[in-house]
Amino acid sequence: MNDISVKKIAINRVVKNQLNSADDIVAIEEPLEIRLVYGSVENRISKNISVTMRTPSNDEELAIGFLFTEGILKNISEVKSLKKDILNENIISIKLNENVTPEIQKLERNFYTTSSCGVCGKSSIDAIRVVSRNTNSTDINIKIKSDLIYELPQMLRQQQSIFDKTGGIHASALFTLEGKFLALKEDVGRHNALDKLIGFCLQNGELNFSNKILLLSGRASFELIQKAAMAGIKLIAAVGAPSSLAVELAMEFDMTLIGFLKEDRFNIYCGAQRIEVA
Amino acid sequence: MNDISVKKIAINRVVKNQLNSADDIVAIEEPLEIRLVYGSVENRISKNISVTMRTPSNDEELAIGFLFTEGILKNISEVKSLKKDILNENIISIKLNENVTPEIQKLERNFYTTSSCGVCGKSSIDAIRVVSRNTNSTDINIKIKSDLIYELPQMLRQQQSIFDKTGGIHASALFTLEGKFLALKEDVGRHNALDKLIGFCLQNGELNFSNKILLLSGRASFELIQKAAMAGIKLIAAVGAPSSLAVELAMEFDMTLIGFLKEDRFNIYCGAQRIEVA
Repeated sequence: MNDISVKKIAINRVVKNQLNSADDIVAIEEPLEIRLVYGSVENRISKNISVTMRTPSNDEELAIGFLFTEGILKNISEVKSLKKDILNENIISIKLNENVTPEIQKLERNFYTTSSCGVCGKSSIDAIRVVSRNTNSTDINIKIKSDLIYELPQMLRQQQSIFDKTGGIHASALFTLEGKFLALKEDVGRHNALDKLIGFCLQNGELNFSNKILLLSGRASFELIQKAAMAGIKLIAAVGAPSSLAVELAMEFDMTLIGFLKEDRFNIYCGAQRIEVA
Repeated sequence: MNDISVKKIAINRVVKNQLNSADDIVAIEEPLEIRLVYGSVENRISKNISVTMRTPSNDEELAIGFLFTEGILKNISEVKSLKKDILNENIISIKLNENVTPEIQKLERNFYTTSSCGVCGKSSIDAIRVVSRNTNSTDINIKIKSDLIYELPQMLRQQQSIFDKTGGIHASALFTLEGKFLALKEDVGRHNALDKLIGFCLQNGELNFSNKILLLSGRASFELIQKAAMAGIKLIAAVGAPSSLAVELAMEFDMTLIGFLKEDRFNIYCGAQRIEVA
């Protein structure tokens, strides 16, 4: 549990024919404005990149992860420093090294939309498939036992901190190929949870995602697969359903995509060659 | 079930120690580009407003609902015609009457982000709270019985068409104050489901939302409350959890917000005066 991520509020609880006042814990949802500071010493530019509705905590990881999975940052070493606004906890600035030119045009579109399943604002359909720099990464010869996969959701639940309290949060977790738990991040927005996870790994020097398993607590949308592809992830297991486009993108990137993961069963949507049924 | 909304794909199903090939039905997720055509006869402007990842079907309703809940359209009568691109089913143009000036600046921000819980791209935190034109609507003296509320999710499930097949879709439904089912829309994106529902009502001449109950199949995020507020909805019941900001916004707009709705219980986050516990 994290005190900046949840909030206790007074509610009325109705059970059958009785109404009683009670306390409830809700996940905090607040905007985070991400600003990018880049350019030469003489010509420093500060640009508002995005506002995302997120659960406070791991804001640095979220900003780093977002810039990385959107293709604006190529490498964590491009970042000089991160700084929260003194007066506003919901504004974070990421300063890049002077010699770095961020791929800002990837986000430069005049209009946008909102969509809970991602890819908002790509102002042209053709622009949606952000090309992953990891498409050509050497595909290591991974094999994962089904028994190991069955255990992942239980490990996720053991590690989850906010979810148990609010019932309203998404989680993304990373495991080794041997099923060892590595990291977990949570957020009201499923994309944010994944960005936080990837940003956390990058900040901690973990740059190789191709030999890891990504576990998603809910559904697998196109955008989550896109972000995972940007990080070079090859193995994704989701507790919920994938969408059609999520499956297509996973195929395109030669990923293994598992859905409806339960304690003794799952569906393999693509990449079955990496799964060994024990 | 709608053939353009779901897709049958070949998968491998793993149950215990057995792998078998099987068919699975996934919800289709595809981009929809919404274009707005407006201005005088001499100076007609065509503008790409947004791309949203949606489940095909009810695209007209989605476009109308989106423009309305984002504050760009004030009224359905401002729309002259809607047209799909001849070559691309994923592009829809909404033509406005010549005398209408859309509030396009509400969307005019250079950058955006993606967030499954909404409000992407509002490039300034201050800009997030889009002011609803319905804040000052006369608050009718609504009273809803708890017994009626318990029955809503069951009615939603009876009406749901795609969900049963894919397990990966969100739904928004509208009921009268007497609990009579009015309409339901589904989508991989929860905002889209709500936009489709509101657009559907507007297209069918239903302009008064203040005497209706909105039921959400999942969580209640800030953005869903914002869209509901734009339509003037006063009663919202969600099967899942609300976020902190969803509760705050519902309070601000004097709405009744119910969460964790089950067959014999629910939480009232605000507006308890409208609930009569039977």
